[in-house]
Amino acid sequence: MVNKKYVYLFEEGQTNMKELLGSKGANLAEMANIGLPVPPGIIITTKACKEFYRAGKKFPAGFEEEIYAKIKVLEEKTGKKFGDPENPLLVSVRSGAPVSMPGMMDTVLNLGLNRQTVKGLARSTGSERFALDCYRRFLTMFGDVVLGIDREKFEHILTALKEKRGVSFDHLLTAADWQQVVDAFETLVEQETNQPLPDQPMEQLFRAIYAVFNSWNSDRAIVYRRVNKIPDDLGTAVNIQIMVFGNMGEDCGTGVAFTRNPSTGEKELYGEYLINAQGEDVVAGIRTPLSIGALKDEMPAIYDQFKAACVLLEKHYRNMQDIEFTVERGKLYILQTRTGKRTAQAAVKVAVDMVKEGLITKEEAILRVEPAHLDSILHRRIDPQAKLEVIAKGLPASPGAASGKVIFDADEAEKLGSEGEKVILVRTETTPDDIHGIVAAKGVLTSRGGMTSHAAVVARGMGKPCICGCEALRIDYAAANFTINGLVVKKGDLISIDGATGQVMLGEVPMLDPELSPEFIELLQWADGIRTLGVRANADTPADVLKSRELGAEGVGLCRTEHMFMAQERLPIVQQMILAARPEERQKALDKLLPMQQEDFYGILKAMTGYPVTIRLLDPPLHEFLPDAEELVEEVSRLLYTEGDQEELKKKRDLLKKVRALAEFNPMLGHRGCRLGITFPEVYAMQARAIFQATAQLIQEGYRVIPEVEIPLVGEVNELTVLRDLVTEIAVKVSRETGVKFDYLVGTMIEVPRAALTAEEIAREADFFSFGTNDLTQTTFGFSRDDAEAKFLHAYIDKKILPDNPFAVLDRSGVGKLMQMTVELGRQTKPDLVIGICGEHGGEPDSIEFCHQIGLNYVSCSPYRVPIARLAAAQAKINNEKRGK
Amino acid sequence: MVNKKYVYLFEEGQTNMKELLGSKGANLAEMANIGLPVPPGIIITTKACKEFYRAGKKFPAGFEEEIYAKIKVLEEKTGKKFGDPENPLLVSVRSGAPVSMPGMMDTVLNLGLNRQTVKGLARSTGSERFALDCYRRFLTMFGDVVLGIDREKFEHILTALKEKRGVSFDHLLTAADWQQVVDAFETLVEQETNQPLPDQPMEQLFRAIYAVFNSWNSDRAIVYRRVNKIPDDLGTAVNIQIMVFGNMGEDCGTGVAFTRNPSTGEKELYGEYLINAQGEDVVAGIRTPLSIGALKDEMPAIYDQFKAACVLLEKHYRNMQDIEFTVERGKLYILQTRTGKRTAQAAVKVAVDMVKEGLITKEEAILRVEPAHLDSILHRRIDPQAKLEVIAKGLPASPGAASGKVIFDADEAEKLGSEGEKVILVRTETTPDDIHGIVAAKGVLTSRGGMTSHAAVVARGMGKPCICGCEALRIDYAAANFTINGLVVKKGDLISIDGATGQVMLGEVPMLDPELSPEFIELLQWADGIRTLGVRANADTPADVLKSRELGAEGVGLCRTEHMFMAQERLPIVQQMILAARPEERQKALDKLLPMQQEDFYGILKAMTGYPVTIRLLDPPLHEFLPDAEELVEEVSRLLYTEGDQEELKKKRDLLKKVRALAEFNPMLGHRGCRLGITFPEVYAMQARAIFQATAQLIQEGYRVIPEVEIPLVGEVNELTVLRDLVTEIAVKVSRETGVKFDYLVGTMIEVPRAALTAEEIAREADFFSFGTNDLTQTTFGFSRDDAEAKFLHAYIDKKILPDNPFAVLDRSGVGKLMQMTVELGRQTKPDLVIGICGEHGGEPDSIEFCHQIGLNYVSCSPYRVPIARLAAAQAKINNEKRGK
Repeated sequence: MVNKKYVYLFEEGQTNMKELLGSKGANLAEMANIGLPVPPGIIITTKACKEFYRAGKKFPAGFEEEIYAKIKVLEEKTGKKFGDPENPLLVSVRSGAPVSMPGMMDTVLNLGLNRQTVKGLARSTGSERFALDCYRRFLTMFGDVVLGIDREKFEHILTALKEKRGVSFDHLLTAADWQQVVDAFETLVEQETNQPLPDQPMEQLFRAIYAVFNSWNSDRAIVYRRVNKIPDDLGTAVNIQIMVFGNMGEDCGTGVAFTRNPSTGEKELYGEYLINAQGEDVVAGIRTPLSIGALKDEMPAIYDQFKAACVLLEKHYRNMQDIEFTVERGKLYILQTRTGKRTAQAAVKVAVDMVKEGLITKEEAILRVEPAHLDSILHRRIDPQAKLEVIAKGLPASPGAASGKVIFDADEAEKLGSEGEKVILVRTETTPDDIHGIVAAKGVLTSRGGMTSHAAVVARGMGKPCICGCEALRIDYAAANFTINGLVVKKGDLISIDGATGQVMLGEVPMLDPELSPEFIELLQWADGIRTLGVRANADTPADVLKSRELGAEGVGLCRTEHMFMAQERLPIVQQMILAARPEERQKALDKLLPMQQEDFYGILKAMTGYPVTIRLLDPPLHEFLPDAEELVEEVSRLLYTEGDQEELKKKRDLLKKVRALAEFNPMLGHRGCRLGITFPEVYAMQARAIFQATAQLIQEGYRVIPEVEIPLVGEVNELTVLRDLVTEIAVKVSRETGVKFDYLVGTMIEVPRAALTAEEIAREADFFSFGTNDLTQTTFGFSRDDAEAKFLHAYIDKKILPDNPFAVLDRSGVGKLMQMTVELGRQTKPDLVIGICGEHGGEPDSIEFCHQIGLNYVSCSPYRVPIARLAAAQAKINNEKRGK
Repeated sequence: MVNKKYVYLFEEGQTNMKELLGSKGANLAEMANIGLPVPPGIIITTKACKEFYRAGKKFPAGFEEEIYAKIKVLEEKTGKKFGDPENPLLVSVRSGAPVSMPGMMDTVLNLGLNRQTVKGLARSTGSERFALDCYRRFLTMFGDVVLGIDREKFEHILTALKEKRGVSFDHLLTAADWQQVVDAFETLVEQETNQPLPDQPMEQLFRAIYAVFNSWNSDRAIVYRRVNKIPDDLGTAVNIQIMVFGNMGEDCGTGVAFTRNPSTGEKELYGEYLINAQGEDVVAGIRTPLSIGALKDEMPAIYDQFKAACVLLEKHYRNMQDIEFTVERGKLYILQTRTGKRTAQAAVKVAVDMVKEGLITKEEAILRVEPAHLDSILHRRIDPQAKLEVIAKGLPASPGAASGKVIFDADEAEKLGSEGEKVILVRTETTPDDIHGIVAAKGVLTSRGGMTSHAAVVARGMGKPCICGCEALRIDYAAANFTINGLVVKKGDLISIDGATGQVMLGEVPMLDPELSPEFIELLQWADGIRTLGVRANADTPADVLKSRELGAEGVGLCRTEHMFMAQERLPIVQQMILAARPEERQKALDKLLPMQQEDFYGILKAMTGYPVTIRLLDPPLHEFLPDAEELVEEVSRLLYTEGDQEELKKKRDLLKKVRALAEFNPMLGHRGCRLGITFPEVYAMQARAIFQATAQLIQEGYRVIPEVEIPLVGEVNELTVLRDLVTEIAVKVSRETGVKFDYLVGTMIEVPRAALTAEEIAREADFFSFGTNDLTQTTFGFSRDDAEAKFLHAYIDKKILPDNPFAVLDRSGVGKLMQMTVELGRQTKPDLVIGICGEHGGEPDSIEFCHQIGLNYVSCSPYRVPIARLAAAQAKINNEKRGK
């Protein structure tokens, strides 16, 4: 015979029975079983729910008898009785599915009350007001959850009375007032249901159970499950638990506490409580709760009991706990325990401490820290205690926080910066012309542009806070101010920005410096010992390279050469190169750039000596180095119609013509990457020469350097063949000229789908692959990142069309499928092909896990994300081993 | 023992021995064997060449003996002898690989001549001048091919003498002059090689054979093979053939003729000849050849003999032949026969006639016509006889030819067009504002924009000639003229354009009208009986739909709705919709568009009654319907600096602001397609309503219509789910409102890689797939078509980085791989899923073959390419069956 048991006492269950007892029920059972003072209760299983549906919404046979029997047990335990006018048994009824469905939970408290028992409760507690308050809460919840009466109708009655009495808070109403409310509620129920309120507690209970089962297939529950991909056939359990009250007098109380400090991770009880209060009073903020330490003086026995419970729970659950408790007439009850939320700092400290206390293993410690949260440790941040007055919000383009004077001009920012002033550069957008201003500023704020705008990319590279696309900002350069919803902020005014949240504040806000605690360093060392995925950094300057080594990078995975072209003193030469009418002119400009690039590469290769450095040849379309066409049109028009300087007019017109000739409809898909290398081989030749001359020089000086020359945007093997030949030719020449032998690799980015689809061919010519997942995501989805983020991606995420922004979290089913294909096809040709990733996903934990799974050799990310990647790589290894992968 | 035969007499070979005897040798052997008067000869096999290399460039054992023996046979056949001073044997030595390698062929004529035999030749021909001319030709070729002496050095000697004599043509030199040339040539050879010219014919022969073998691995041959993907180990054969001369007197002659008229396909001999001349004289154009018919009178016996040979060859090769012949002293020799090149018209007629003559099967007839050449039959074209003076060349954006007056303004074009004037609209680029001008014009010429520019797409849709991106054109709208390299063409001047070649001509050029001959129609009917791939048309108007049905379309595969939005009277309403600040305003504009769209769909569905019509909902980014930002900046600046109308200034500024807000960095990858449908569902809702209301109306009127609603740019199944729900909801509503039941399908374009990669999911929600290979090619390569074609694609094709323009010929290894994946994954979910293609590749024969191979249900192309597609689809079927597929 099959097991027909539908109802469990708490003491019959345990934590691993979540599927049958629901998540909440299993936890309550677990606590009861380890001897904690949990108010007694019973759990109706999910099996009962499933049979309820199978039978066409009918309780299964034997179910009601079992409930009667179990309620009897509760009555015996408490000495109270359902419907007893003297000492009534009161229970809460709550749904509890195997998977948490927040906001879907239907709850009825104080079930068991009616016109008779409410009097008994008044007598037994000595407070008519308290009893009536309990009853009206029950009426509201039962009316709403079980009888389907709009909750607002109850609220409306209460509000009307409070207005009549001229009071704002419930606790200012008298017992007589509550009696009036209760009467009105009962009348409301009769009117709405055309029958009196069911007043038999057992009937109330069955109807409440029916309502909870029924709620499993409510529209909102179905939608919630569909959206969150929860199976429809799990069913929900129902928890029925004895009510306890913390508001029956001065020997009562309620509180919450963490077993460790959730801000710092220190091992100390941390929390607060209120005497003679209910849980919701702590939240309501009418009275100020006391620190948990004070309980030691006020109720020493309870405090000791609670502390012992905390120790027990932490040991039992092997994690820091967040515990709710209530004291009813001098007796402690533990109502709930759950894993305590904590800051990144605390997470690290708790995890490392627990390893040392022997509570958990190093692997567990590593899994305990959410890598994404480490951002806040790695950047200067706003003091979480500070009260902020946020005046605007933009895109969180580069994490970290900064305060400074508002400055609208890059030159001025540079000047003030060099004088030691703290400056925030505020622009509609930044261009290569503003780089020196960004360098000098503490942070950048723009009103236009997305997460890959110039400002965002440059700031992230420098580890500098940046907010982009702050559209509420109206900048008036002429008046030297900006306006946000009527508020005018002038040049020189102080503001603060938080690049992690996108928030803009007036004035200077208190901040905390980043600190790499000893625990953090230790945790990362453990991670290094476990992970198999390498971690490199995306770094374009020697300073960035040194920073990344300090943070644990094992090489440079992406050194972008275009940022070097954008340096203020070089831009005119770069423009001269682009605008050259004849090859000799172009060569002249290139000859000037050569020593500069050589110096760049010298510095970078030297800073990463002993580790590989991947240098990507010029990638962006050339017109990115030129002025904006619309601005030129404006200048030309001004000069034309104001009869300005005719020579200047001619010059600007000529420039405009060239800018237009270079303009593209879709620059992302245009004349860039290796396409430039093929049409202007002299540019790549110069870069290759600079790399190899720097290499030869370093080797002569005794350094060990291995440059990896990377050809961007290859989609067809012939592109790589041609450019590899070019690079090789120059390497041979430089080696001959300098008499120095050196090693080097030539490889390619995989960043357009065709490269992935033909990876077996491309691998023939490549020493390594590196996934450029930013562009690969753009081309796979057909999304221009800047346009998508500004125009429709938010709607896609809001409407759950996409689970995440695919530019932040790697899209496994599309982009990931191409990556997997690439790895398979590439290694089919070269089994030992080194494959890495250098898109922004390389610093994102979920994406890093995927990279580990498909067998990449390394991830590369911005210097400040290197520690995150180290941790995430270790987690990926541990999780995948658990899954037997 | 292995077969050691290295040398074949012509009569020992046949046409299917190409691998061993080379292509040329096998054909000569074949002709000899069917009894044609081919000058006797022998073939050295490719096996000999391969052994030559295997042995380190040595002739294999027994080889020389075999040559001696076979030369003996030739001597016996001709009664001439190698080195015989009285009656010397003269031969030609030519290389001949199994695969044709034009321009790689090394040839030595008149081998066997030396100081002694040249005298015998003079005597036997009675012309010293002739004999010396033969000898000097031999010296030049032997010197160049065998001895490696720069051919220019020979030319130089000859040129110097002609200057000295004051003559321009060789035939004006005397025998004494030729003696002088020959002497100088011999001296040159001695100087260059430090030894006298080898004068023994057998030595000459072996050295020539050595040289031909050696040329197989010359640099240019190796490069040619690499580029053309010809295996390096084929080796070359060597053909040694008796010389015949058409220039020995009045009983000699030479000529070429086609067995049928290569222009019209009429069954008649077509060609020309010269008495007393060599082949090269026909080409040189010094004397005017006579029509082949005249030979009947001049040499009736030869003519009859030749005619019989023609009949024999046509029967034997079962195709129209292009035959070279020589008459030496009253004896006819056939020197070469090959398949004759022909116009598309002729190809069709010849193929159909030959079926009727019982020469070939219908399948063969279908394979005989190159579908791509049909373009010229289907459009008005320039008379191939006309002498053209081309003044500029642009991109051939839409085939066909037209003449008309140059007009720069769309309104004026419309006005003149309505008055019956023929007009060519000339613009830098066209915009939606110019549509009425394009409609009225005979053709369009733009100086900017690529193959997918507005002008190109619109013109192709209308089957109207168009040249785009004609960059030499400098248009001055103010002066109402354009300049090409200094030549000024004014408004009203006549020009002609050829949209198939991109050529622009001054004045009116003679043209031929398109004609669908009865043979053409018959051939297409045969094709329809064979093909399994359906053929639909891309058509946006009832007129296009009717045209496409006339040309054999079996449905509309793509009806673009955006062109309807661009009609002049609608654009303001569309702009009103886009610029609407509030939803009600937008709805008002949509309400105005609804009846217009309904009328559009009514007309289109009615015109295609009985066949499916796929209607794509709005696809392009909204800002395509708005004015250009740069132009607005200019206007705003003008109004500002000239203190113009302040109200106008404000209006323009507001508009500019909105245009900027809608502007995108990469519109191709931006806010378009289903992304619009998701963010502005009311637009798609209006379109769906228009489709279904038209459907209901037609069904009430008794028509059979099945609209297929197509959602563009889907990359994720959830996009399709949301929009399919929207469309379904409206279908249900319209059905209820009208009381009419109707069928419809909802499907999607597959045009971004992610759609292909997740096709198994998308198929769940799709009734059909249609490949948008234009966009799929853009995203798979990461090429913006307009930018790529203007900036770098030409370099890619020049440098053979890509074999073809992937926007013209489907890229099988990248885009094709994704398509194959889509078909597999999609039909995994729905085995009967209907899958088509509506990108431009749907009208390109090579791409159509691929579509057949991967199992698509239909291709869809512009109306004028429907016949091409019908034929190509049949060819694909036949060819694949041959390959056992």
